[in-house]
Formats: sequence, C-alpha cells, structure tokens
Amino acid sequence: MATLVLLRHGESVWNAEGLFTGWVDVGLSEKGMEEARRGGRLLVDNDVMPDVVHTSVLTRAIQTANAALGEADLLWLPVRRSWRLNERHYGALQGKNKAQTREEFGDEQFMLWRRSYDTPPPPLPDGHEMSQVQDVRYATLPQELIPRTECLKDVVERLLPYWYDSIVPDLASGRTVLVVAHGNSLRALVKHLDKISDDEIAGLNIPTGIPLLYDLDENYLPVKQGGTYLDPDAAQAAIEAVKNQGK
Amino acid sequence: MATLVLLRHGESVWNAEGLFTGWVDVGLSEKGMEEARRGGRLLVDNDVMPDVVHTSVLTRAIQTANAALGEADLLWLPVRRSWRLNERHYGALQGKNKAQTREEFGDEQFMLWRRSYDTPPPPLPDGHEMSQVQDVRYATLPQELIPRTECLKDVVERLLPYWYDSIVPDLASGRTVLVVAHGNSLRALVKHLDKISDDEIAGLNIPTGIPLLYDLDENYLPVKQGGTYLDPDAAQAAIEAVKNQGK
Repeated sequence: MATLVLLRHGESVWNAEGLFTGWVDVGLSEKGMEEARRGGRLLVDNDVMPDVVHTSVLTRAIQTANAALGEADLLWLPVRRSWRLNERHYGALQGKNKAQTREEFGDEQFMLWRRSYDTPPPPLPDGHEMSQVQDVRYATLPQELIPRTECLKDVVERLLPYWYDSIVPDLASGRTVLVVAHGNSLRALVKHLDKISDDEIAGLNIPTGIPLLYDLDENYLPVKQGGTYLDPDAAQAAIEAVKNQGK
Repeated sequence: MATLVLLRHGESVWNAEGLFTGWVDVGLSEKGMEEARRGGRLLVDNDVMPDVVHTSVLTRAIQTANAALGEADLLWLPVRRSWRLNERHYGALQGKNKAQTREEFGDEQFMLWRRSYDTPPPPLPDGHEMSQVQDVRYATLPQELIPRTECLKDVVERLLPYWYDSIVPDLASGRTVLVVAHGNSLRALVKHLDKISDDEIAGLNIPTGIPLLYDLDENYLPVKQGGTYLDPDAAQAAIEAVKNQGK
C-alpha cells in the first residue's frame, strides 16, 4: 500500500497583503516559513517518512518543502519539480487586491472567479508585467501550453498527466510520496482522488501547512475518502476560518 | 560547449569547532549560510545561469545549494542528489578534534591522513556512534558499498560513475550544470578534469563558497586548465590562507 502526503504552502508575502498571486513568483512570509517548519515537525511526530518529494516550480512551494524537510532532517530526499503542480493561473487578476476586486466586480462575479469549476478570469495579456510567458523556467514549453488564465478545470487537466506519469510511478512498490504545492493544484488533485463532483469541489478548502495523508489502494485511489490530516483539530479550525471569511 | 560550475559548501558547525566531519551530517553555521548566499550572488553578478543542480546527500551541501539558489531566484531548477558526491569518509577520525589528533599522532601521520592520495585513516567500526552504516539515506545500498573510511583515491573511484552517468549527460547539448559538494569530492572531480597527478593533488585546495567555472570541450574536459573562480581575488586569498594554516 502506497502513501501520499499533500502539503499546501504557508502564507506568502502576497497572501499577507491580500493580493491574487497565481503564477507570480512570490516568497513565503516569516509566518509562512513557520507554518512550513510546523508541517515538518508533524511528519516527524507522526512517524511519516517520505521517500521522495514533488514540488511545483514556484518559490513559495519550494521554500515550504525545504523548510519542512530541513525540520525533519530529510533535506537529502530526492526531489522533482514540475510546472504542472503550480498554483492556478489567476489571469488578469494576478497582482490585484482581493478586496478591491470584490468591490469593483461585485460578490457574485468575485466568487465565480474564485470558486466556480469552469469559469476562468479574463486572460492576462502577454506583455503584462504580471505575465509569465517570458519566464525562463517555462522556456522549454511551447507558447500555447503556458497559461494566460485558468479555471480549476484547466488545472485538473494540466495536472493529471504529471500525476499519472511522475507521481504514481513513485508511489509504486509501496513508497511514501510528499507533494508540496498550492491551494488550487492540491484541490484539483483531491478532486481526482476523492471523486468530488464539479459542483461540490467549490466547498473544499485545504488548510496551509498541515500534511494531509492518504493511504492508497492498488489503483492509487484513497482507502479512506478525504484522507487524514496529521493535525485534525488545527485542520478543522482552519477550514472553519476560511468558511467564515468575509461573513 | 558545456559549462560546469563547482561550489564547495561554506563553514559547517563542526568546521567552526575544528572537528573532522566526513559523512557525519552536520549543518552549516550562520557564517556558512552567508558564504552560500554570496556564492549565489556571484552567479547572478557573472550572468552564470545553471540549468540543473547536483548535490551530495549531506545537509551542509544541500543547505548551501538552497541558500545560493534562493539568492539567485533559481530555487525552481531541477536538482539531483547522490551519495557519490559526499565528502570523503574520514573513518575513525570522524568526530575527533583536529588539533588533538595532530598532537596525538604527530604532524607526519596527520598530514598523511589529510592529504595523501591513497592512505585512508583507520576504518570506523559499524556500531560506532559516528558510523553511517545504518543511516536510512543509504538503505538501498549494499552494505559493502557504504564506506567505513576513505582516502582520496577511493573518492575518485566512487565519484566517477556519477560523473559519467549523471552529470555528463546533463552537460550534453551545451547546458550549464552546478555541482554543490565538498572539499574532497570536488578535489576528486578536479583531479579528473585537470588530470592532476596523484602527488600534485595534495597541494590543491578549493575555497568555500566561491563558484569555480569550467568551460568544457566536446570530450567534457576543461578548455582552460584549472577553470575560473567567479571571485578570483577572494579565491586566491582563501587558498593562501589554507597554505599558511598551522604555520
């Protein structure tokens, strides 16, 4: 039986400032670094010992992986990175203030962009300062594969090839795989694993910095729907806090 | 033409305390972290942009790579790790004080262990607290491949398979490869590259934290013997300082 451990990065500098981030490469805040180290301690305290680590190519996920692994004395683990684990591209919203966007476009449009499964924000023009089309880390990708905006459905579609081709082979032979990524790339993966419907995925939030463990069966699907957070009380409190945001 | 960049980790906690370290997994001191960040700035200042990174499986090399890459906004680079890039195993000297060892065994024996090409220190018994035979990071290696002591010749022999099978393929197609490792694993690699004799290698020291750049020809051998330090003055000063140690 293989084990998958998901870890969402902690607070970034732009999370703290209330800005849409997406593919903009912003580092962790000091609070985010502490969340990452706490994630590492939770691995140790629960005797969860990954064999290999996967991260996105965004700094805040990599800093989270490095800080968590450093805390667990596991910096030496093999690590792989892929743009397919990146956060959802937030299109023309990248770099914009969340509260101002909500005010400008109204609650309904705002929630549609944030939580609908298949409505992306308007695309970001290629010459825009928030665009990643010219970023050297995507230089080997064909231009048409680099997103200008994404809805969650787009994230599922670009993530699954990496799941099947890179993560599942690492899970083979009963190994434990740690995936350190983002709110929406992890929601996309959990949607696939737990077979969550397009409508119900809107209500799913994954807390930051708390490892979420899935034991997987021979088809690489969860033995227990929803998995297990290594700190269930803290996870529940964080999920409630998100639900009450803006109330 | 391919480019190879070598970076030796900065001061570790045990370097600062004057202890033989070898395969004991000791982290960087704050001074060592600063050396690593300076190494990253030298990459940026000299427009050296690696495509891929290789490290040992020892924390002090990985911390150096992470800090240097973080400073250069290159945390997203693909990274590979191997025990074959580890520091020389220092045998029964691991954990011992250098000054006390020199006093106990005399100058001649001390220098023989430190700098001779083919005289290893006495082996470390498997049950010893400084032994790495039971370390989980080497669990997939057959017991007989895990060193109990090494001379530099042993390091050359265990390093070259990784050079040929993993680093050279990454150098193919003119890519730039960064190798972050240790005093003796980098001396072993430089001995191979610059075709330094068994006698002359004793006099070669590689300073910490200063990237050493080699342009390589079609046979993956240096265009210019000895390569180029990205901060030549600091490198020369560091090399002189080592020569004068203990005088």
